[in-house]
Formats: sequence, structure tokens, C-alpha cells
Amino acid sequence: MSRPGPIEYADAPPQVRIVFDDIKRSRNIEDVNNFWKYLANDPTLLKRTWESVKEVMAEGALSPLVKELLYVAVSATNGCGYCIASHTASARKAGMTEAMFGELMAVVGMAKETNRLANGYRVPIDEAFG
Amino acid sequence: MSRPGPIEYADAPPQVRIVFDDIKRSRNIEDVNNFWKYLANDPTLLKRTWESVKEVMAEGALSPLVKELLYVAVSATNGCGYCIASHTASARKAGMTEAMFGELMAVVGMAKETNRLANGYRVPIDEAFG
Amino acid sequence: MSRPGPIEYADAPPQVRIVFDDIKRSRNIEDVNNFWKYLANDPTLLKRTWESVKEVMAEGALSPLVKELLYVAVSATNGCGYCIASHTASARKAGMTEAMFGELMAVVGMAKETNRLANGYRVPIDEAFG
Amino acid sequence: MSRPGPIEYADAPPQVRIVFDDIKRSRNIEDVNNFWKYLANDPTLLKRTWESVKEVMAEGALSPLVKELLYVAVSATNGCGYCIASHTASARKAGMTEAMFGELMAVVGMAKETNRLANGYRVPIDEAFG
Amino acid sequence: MSRPGPIEYADAPPQVRIVFDDIKRSRNIEDVNNFWKYLANDPTLLKRTWESVKEVMAEGALSPLVKELLYVAVSATNGCGYCIASHTASARKAGMTEAMFGELMAVVGMAKETNRLANGYRVPIDEAFG
Amino acid sequence: MSRPGPIEYADAPPQVRIVFDDIKRSRNIEDVNNFWKYLANDPTLLKRTWESVKEVMAEGALSPLVKELLYVAVSATNGCGYCIASHTASARKAGMTEAMFGELMAVVGMAKETNRLANGYRVPIDEAFG
Repeated sequence: MSRPGPIEYADAPPQVRIVFDDIKRSRNIEDVNNFWKYLANDPTLLKRTWESVKEVMAEGALSPLVKELLYVAVSATNGCGYCIASHTASARKAGMTEAMFGELMAVVGMAKETNRLANGYRVPIDEAFG
Repeated sequence: MSRPGPIEYADAPPQVRIVFDDIKRSRNIEDVNNFWKYLANDPTLLKRTWESVKEVMAEGALSPLVKELLYVAVSATNGCGYCIASHTASARKAGMTEAMFGELMAVVGMAKETNRLANGYRVPIDEAFG
Repeated sequence: MSRPGPIEYADAPPQVRIVFDDIKRSRNIEDVNNFWKYLANDPTLLKRTWESVKEVMAEGALSPLVKELLYVAVSATNGCGYCIASHTASARKAGMTEAMFGELMAVVGMAKETNRLANGYRVPIDEAFG
Repeated sequence: MSRPGPIEYADAPPQVRIVFDDIKRSRNIEDVNNFWKYLANDPTLLKRTWESVKEVMAEGALSPLVKELLYVAVSATNGCGYCIASHTASARKAGMTEAMFGELMAVVGMAKETNRLANGYRVPIDEAFG
Repeated sequence: MSRPGPIEYADAPPQVRIVFDDIKRSRNIEDVNNFWKYLANDPTLLKRTWESVKEVMAEGALSPLVKELLYVAVSATNGCGYCIASHTASARKAGMTEAMFGELMAVVGMAKETNRLANGYRVPIDEAFG
Repeated sequence: MSRPGPIEYADAPPQVRIVFDDIKRSRNIEDVNNFWKYLANDPTLLKRTWESVKEVMAEGALSPLVKELLYVAVSATNGCGYCIASHTASARKAGMTEAMFGELMAVVGMAKETNRLANGYRVPIDEAFG
């Protein structure tokens, strides 16, 4: 068994092509990102992940832009290089400006810092927070 | 040396009271949260942290509501119980509805999942992401 | 199978007692902490963990105080409540003052913040760092 | 002081060679991985780490394959690129198939997602869990 | 808006009851865990999460026991108290013995340790790992 | 909007140059690191981060060397490649020897391992820890 590589559309089985087609149509792009090409090694995982992402990132009580900002924030917190790169790109498409990105980074950094201070001082939860 | 406990206003030295007063005025509350009472054990740390938080969370390219949503997202990602509780409360004050909270959680969960898939499959960054 | 609970000295098998005795002698305490009582459910794990901790935390190029400070820093970063509590206590025994604890927390918080900024901006490593 | 680089067998002091020889014999390989060559900068750390790994990964109540799967899962959770690469390779040697890897990734991703949901909703532990 | 609490079956809307019924039937239990009662605040999130968990944790290339072991490993790595408690309980139901739990913990601990060493020494990936 | 790149001194606006000048003077270096050049995309963030870092890392109850060791420990725990590289370099400048680095890594690794064991066994905090 060799290391799983990316599956290109031309080499993909039918159930993978169905998902790839849906991604391309939904996002109006010509080819899917590497992320989906790697997941295609496990078509069930690919299908479930895509359907969940599509449902989660749709317009709802929060706008797609806010959802992308949240995605970038979590990815930066986790230190996932690929995810930071791909969702920063998506967030820009959805309207993120340079100034928004700067403020996003500032909030993420500050939250990390205060999270650690709260842990380190073992601060008990205020009654008012319920 | 005993474990540092919370410093109440009545027992606080002048440079701590100045910060507490500013927090209460800025947030229009009668007493500061436990977080600030614990940080007050180190007045320099208290002052710098409060000034940074005040600057970072102010209205800017992102609204205070979006900033609070980001704070909750990072705190949930880090698993900091105190921070989740306190910033969920702040986010509600800033306008977060039940439906927004549900979607926020969904995005955070999905981001964590795809972050790990990207890491696990060691997906290379697409050239298009720059 | 019920959830593993703490193993008290009186109920411990001989190979666990040998480790407990060594912990008590090395640290000059009357009873071991809960951490060791839980690990005693797996005597091999208990023995290896204790021997590694003893070796790692001994006086060396770094003093025991500096090592305890590092332990607290990593535990606060991980958000492990038990570990923060137990190693803050050990650090105090080893000489940590209130002022040192405040500065330790400040460095941990700042490091977490700048770590995320470096990740978020995907800063390339300077050549000078080798 | 320059940055620590890998120590090759030919340049290694006797106490490092003893460990390298044991790794090669135990794993039936011609040369040790980079991980061990870097740890060799601190022979005490090298020896303790190798002896612990050898003991922990041996056949026991869990098979070596299951242990390697667990190692990959933790490494993917931590986002350690080197560890994912090296333990995916070991897991394959121990019998991991492509399908197993896909399911492993699915479980890791799902666990990360539900971990965050449990944290975010601050779900109290059910009494039944003890 | 008050903090979201658990939704009991008696108070649940029809689309939540359908999911609760499926969980109870699939797991042969009389009531669902707190986790599901909290997610029920967002019926869409509840449904998607349950369907994903059911699919991911089913018998496949890996047995349900191995999948539960992996779940516990990731939860311990993340430090999610609720998830460790609930999945340790599930793992026991699926056949995990006390000895397996001890070895599981040992592998998780060792993986965390070596992950950090690999990061700290910035070990480059061996060519052999592909 | 393209991805934010580094801002060189020659292209920097006045309020960025003031910060760059202060960094160069304080550290006695000819050019600032990439980290600061990227943060310069958001001058407010740059200024606040530098002022906080300067204050936090100054001589105090803990020496600059101990503070740098703590910074490396947190960065290794977080797995931030850039931060490990840059603060390992700073720590060396501040006097860290090869032996200190080996022991630092050993403590970080051991702390990670025992943190997970404490979480996994859900060890309750000893009363003695207060």
C-alpha cells in the first residue's frame, strides 16, 4: 500500500464524480481543491464531508462571510496550514477586506491569550453566566 | 505563598481600582467579572490585558457582535470553560440569537473536523491560494 | 468493568507500593497525590511514568525551579486543570513567588497570542534562524 | 551554539550507538529515522524515549496495529506533520489498509467535531458515566 | 435569551423526537445522553451530527471497539471531559478491558510526548515516508 | 485583495517605521524579523503586539533567559514552526546551551504526556492543592 495521493476527475469513479460535479457547480469553479481530491480516496468520507460543509456554510442566521471568518479563526487556532490558506481565500471571495483580516487576527490572538490566563489562574465561572 | 485568589474592589490598590473603574464604565456594569479580579494579582498584567481587550473588541471593520462570535469560536476550540461561559454571555448581550449560536457551533465543529482531515491526509496547499 | 478509581497504599500490590515508597521518599511527603493513585491501575505505566518524571525533573543544566515553571507553562497551554493545580503547588515549593507566577502567566499568554498571529499570517521562517 | 542537527551513526558516541543498534535490531531496519538522529543530541533523552516507546508499543492487551492506529490518531489531532508521516508508515507496515486509514480519519474528524460541540454547549456529564 | 439547556423527549418537537427515537433504537437504550439533549436546541445540527456519528462508528474495515478506542484517544488528546467520560463508557460496552484502557492511555501519552519532541527539534520528514 | 505579504522598511508608512526603529534599537539588530513585517499590514496590531512583547519579556522577577525558555516551551506545545525557530534563536542569544535545550524538550514532552494521563483518568484535584 502506497501513500494516498490526489484523485483527479479523469481517474475518479462515478460516485466521486457526482460529488466533484456538485462542488464545482455550487462554487462555480472549474476544478475542486486538493482537499477534495485527497478525501476522494474514501468516497463515503468525501460525500459526507461535502454534504455537511455545504449545509453548514449556507446562508442562515449568520452570513456566509461571518461563517468564513469563523472558519479562518478556528483554523488559525488549530494551526492547520492548509485550512488557513484555503479559508482565507474563501473569506476574501465572500468579502473579507484587509482591515477585517487584521482585526480577525487580533481577536484570535487576544482570545488565545485570555483563554490561557483564565486557565492558569483557574478562574471560577461567575454566577451571572448561568 | 498561598494560591492567588480574587481581589475585590474594596481591597484593591489604587492602580487596580483605576482599571476596574474603566471596565465598569466601559461596559456599564456594577462589578467586574472574576477574570479581572484574578488578574488583579498582577496589576501590570491586568492593565495591559484590559487595554488590549478594549482596543481589540471595539467597533472597527468588524462589528462587536462578530468579534464576540469569533471569541466564542476560539474559546470553544481551546476548550476553555470560563471563556466559553463569559463570552457566550457577552455575545448574547451584543445580539447573538439562539439560531446564531447553533450555526456558530456547527461551523466550529466542521472546521475542527476538516482541519484534522487536511492534516491527516497531508494535503498540499493549492497554488491558487497564493 | 467499572471506572478505574484511585488505589490506596493499603490496597496496593507490592510492585505499586515500591513506586509509592520511592515517590514519598524522594519528595519527602506522607502520601502520594491522586495522579499516582490513578496511574496505579496500570503498574507498568505507573513505574515508567514515575521513573521518567524523576529523571526529567532532577537538577541538571536547568534548576528544578525553572523546570517546574516550564511544567506549569505547558499545563496552562494545554488547559489541564489537574496539572496546573499540582505543578503550581510544586513550583511554589521550589521557590516560585507571586511575582514570578504573574510574569509566567504573562509570557504564556503572549506566546499563545503571537503563535496564532504567526500561523494566521503564515509567516515564513527567516533564513537567519537556520 | 548552532542549531542541533541530526547525529549520524558514524559520528555518534558509544551510548548513542547502543540505542541506535537496538532500534535497528528491534525494527529490522538498516538505519534509524531522523527523529532518533535529532534526539541523539541529548543521549539521556534518546535512551529514555526509545525505551519507553519500545515498551509502550509492544504486543499487549492491544495489538501493535491498533497501537499504531492510535498513534496516528493522536498525531493527526495534534497536527504534527512528522509524526503523521512516520506513524502512517509504521501503521501500514503493521497491516493498515487504505480502507482502515479512511475510517481512522473519519473517526478522528468526527471526534474533534463532537468534542467541540460538547465544550461549546457545556454539556454536564451524565450520571450513568460514573 | 437564556443559556440553552437540555431538551427532554416530552418537550421535543417532532423532528427532534425522530432522531431521539433512532438513537434509542440503534443503541438499545431507554434515554439519550445529555450530549444529544443539548444539541436538540438546533434540530438541524442534531440530525446531521447523529447521522454522521452513526455512519462513522458502524462496523467497517475497523471494528466498533477499535473505533471507540480511537474516539477516547482523540478526546483525551483534546482534553474534553464530557467526551472522555462518555466514550470511555461506550468503549467498555464494546469490550474494552481495564488492561486495554491502561495501554491506550500509555500510547496517547507517549504520542503526545514524541509529537512535541519532533516539533521542538524541527525534524525533517524522512524521504522513505513518501 | 491579494494575500498580505511582508512590508519592508522602505515601503512602510511612518507609524510602522516608528515601531520598526524601536524593535531594531531595543534588540540591537539591523532589520526586523519576518513576523513584524507581516504584522505591519495592520499598524495598530503591530504597535500593540510589540509594546506588549517588550513589556512582557523585560527583566523582572524572571530573567530574560527563563522567559525565552518559557516561550520556546509554549511554542513547542502549540506546534508553531515559526515561533519555535525564532524563539529558539532568541533563547540562544540569551544564554541557552545545548544541554539546556535538551532538558527543556524533555520537560515539555513529559508535561504533555502526564497532562493527557491526568485528563484520561479524570484525576480529581487533591485538596492539598487548594
